[in-house]
Amino acid sequence: MTEIPQTELDRLRQETPGVQNRIHLNNAGAALVPRPVFDTVVEYLERENSIGGYEAHAENIARIEGVHDSIARLVGAGREEISLAENATLAWQRAFYSLHFKPGERILTTTTEFAANYVAYLQVSQRTGARVEVIPDDASGALDPEALERMIDGSVRLISITWIPSNGGLVNPAAEVGKIARRNGITYLLDACQAVGQMPIDVAELGCDLLTATGRKFLRAPRGTGFLYVRRDLLRDLEPAFIDLFGAPWVGPERYQLRNDARRFETWEANYSTRLGLGAAADYAMDIGLERIRSRCSVLAGQIREGLGDIPGVRVRDIGRDQASIVSFTMDGKDARKEMKRLTDKGINISVSPPSTTPLDASHRGLPDILRVSPHYYNDASEISQFLDAVRESSG
Amino acid sequence: MTEIPQTELDRLRQETPGVQNRIHLNNAGAALVPRPVFDTVVEYLERENSIGGYEAHAENIARIEGVHDSIARLVGAGREEISLAENATLAWQRAFYSLHFKPGERILTTTTEFAANYVAYLQVSQRTGARVEVIPDDASGALDPEALERMIDGSVRLISITWIPSNGGLVNPAAEVGKIARRNGITYLLDACQAVGQMPIDVAELGCDLLTATGRKFLRAPRGTGFLYVRRDLLRDLEPAFIDLFGAPWVGPERYQLRNDARRFETWEANYSTRLGLGAAADYAMDIGLERIRSRCSVLAGQIREGLGDIPGVRVRDIGRDQASIVSFTMDGKDARKEMKRLTDKGINISVSPPSTTPLDASHRGLPDILRVSPHYYNDASEISQFLDAVRESSG
Repeated sequence: MTEIPQTELDRLRQETPGVQNRIHLNNAGAALVPRPVFDTVVEYLERENSIGGYEAHAENIARIEGVHDSIARLVGAGREEISLAENATLAWQRAFYSLHFKPGERILTTTTEFAANYVAYLQVSQRTGARVEVIPDDASGALDPEALERMIDGSVRLISITWIPSNGGLVNPAAEVGKIARRNGITYLLDACQAVGQMPIDVAELGCDLLTATGRKFLRAPRGTGFLYVRRDLLRDLEPAFIDLFGAPWVGPERYQLRNDARRFETWEANYSTRLGLGAAADYAMDIGLERIRSRCSVLAGQIREGLGDIPGVRVRDIGRDQASIVSFTMDGKDARKEMKRLTDKGINISVSPPSTTPLDASHRGLPDILRVSPHYYNDASEISQFLDAVRESSG
Repeated sequence: MTEIPQTELDRLRQETPGVQNRIHLNNAGAALVPRPVFDTVVEYLERENSIGGYEAHAENIARIEGVHDSIARLVGAGREEISLAENATLAWQRAFYSLHFKPGERILTTTTEFAANYVAYLQVSQRTGARVEVIPDDASGALDPEALERMIDGSVRLISITWIPSNGGLVNPAAEVGKIARRNGITYLLDACQAVGQMPIDVAELGCDLLTATGRKFLRAPRGTGFLYVRRDLLRDLEPAFIDLFGAPWVGPERYQLRNDARRFETWEANYSTRLGLGAAADYAMDIGLERIRSRCSVLAGQIREGLGDIPGVRVRDIGRDQASIVSFTMDGKDARKEMKRLTDKGINISVSPPSTTPLDASHRGLPDILRVSPHYYNDASEISQFLDAVRESSG
């Protein structure tokens, strides 16, 4: 059964107190955290404050260690392949900057790559002489696996792509890219920030070596959380670009030894309240079922695309064939930031993606600031009509 | 007036609910967070959950931006010299790994250096051919500025020391080191994790180029907080070892530009609840007054040292002339971990420092696991006698 029944939806909305105050369609920014996740965080903070931080940690060590298991289950990995991080950027930096590049080696990425990753490619390119190249899109605007295939030769050191771009609505064919990477023995880094919590993730099926994600978006975890998956076989040869006593314990005179699991990328210092919140959010999503979540997100995003498509003066700016729960649009003659403000004032949360977040795509398609609407499973039909009505009001 | 009057102490204890449950002498681990700081964090989390994460951020932008000002005031820096981080390790890594070393260049550090920093020196040494050298101690066991002076020549690229080591009780002469560093134009990185919140900090007086600290220790901020100070003049030439769109915005085709302040080291993703908690903790400490806090910490730590010194079979393991609010000791014939457990069971929080946290010093002095007691201004005389009684009980 892929549908979430109404009674369950009612409960999920009850566990999301923010829906009383806002129509929250900004889940690609930061989702509303479910009550059980929120309570996990706050109760742990209270416990730290009642008995002491180290003491609360000692008392809760089993639960805290369980977070790695939850995340491993969420992405189909082994526990030893998971490294927790304070956010996805940090997780991604830990992965990317630990790779070594020689002059002339190539980094292949997508037209819709998140600019934060892209500036890191540029930095490493300047530093090492590696080259950044963009994989052409297919006719729909998604990464074209055949075009990727044609680019492959011995100089490709890394394929690094964003699975679901921060706007544009598309889902890149991450698993097809994985097949090509695996077949050619090329390291494959997948940014799954917008995918985690929105759809099932199976690292074996994806064929990626490294996968990074944030907690705060569709996974509904607190801010200040993220993780990195490192494939077992790659880990052996991967020394973190920067180390700490936790990941690289001191083992003898002037000698450290890297941990033999992915936690070699972690620091000793951690925020255990948010970490427990991340684990609780992963468990919460798995209890609902990621397949059911994907299915409902797809229905709601489809309703939004269709509804926006019917409004004169509104242009849906989504590309790709396989689409995610992120809908991008512009309104003729309207400033996106003013429209966002107008909607916020009505209690409808959406966001604006400036061209600088996905500059290659924005420049290629001549996109201005665009409006981004990202429903999640806890949104309902009435919220979507209210949102569409509010857009219609301004465009009319 | 350097003394905190009793009425004020009573209020400070009332604002520290954990003192009802524990005698918390583990402030060098993680202090109890004051109620106003705790409330700041939880209220912000609640607001995020009522109206959405991005929306709460937009609503609180002025307060959030104010955190940089609070930290700048705390250390006597300009706002543009402060970069916030998710913990001190990250802040330190951002500083250290952004420096470049040539083969044969020297990194000078202390005998009591925190091992997490030391493993990073070893890694960079292996990577670049730079050499790590240890500055000899004076007779008291603190870093000897005269010995440092004698080591200086054109090959010294960096002086990187821990101001207050994680155990051993001493305060290294950070400002004297700063004078030598400045006079010789050598980059100076100061780890102030155990100093911040325990005593006044003035980066100009210290003469450091880079200073890092955590929030969770004597500053009484929530876990998941830290910061980096970068001296204005150094910043110009310092490109972060790893960048993100926040610190290095995309400014044109295939080009990023570093921010011109220390926030070039920050990521776009941040946990604003803990960040606000960090600011509130800094304000709270400044309201009490860091000079008064130092003075009271010094009195309490002195009482503990004296009390422990009178107990047969107890050996205080502190070194240095200038001493901090961290007291280290061993008990003849007793296992430190068991003793810690015994005290914890009595509601007394202390911690154990294994030799691996300060390996050079531990090996030089032949130290086993040692017990660490770290009082803060909110502790009182009765708590200290109860702690001493509990130690006496076991050693007798």
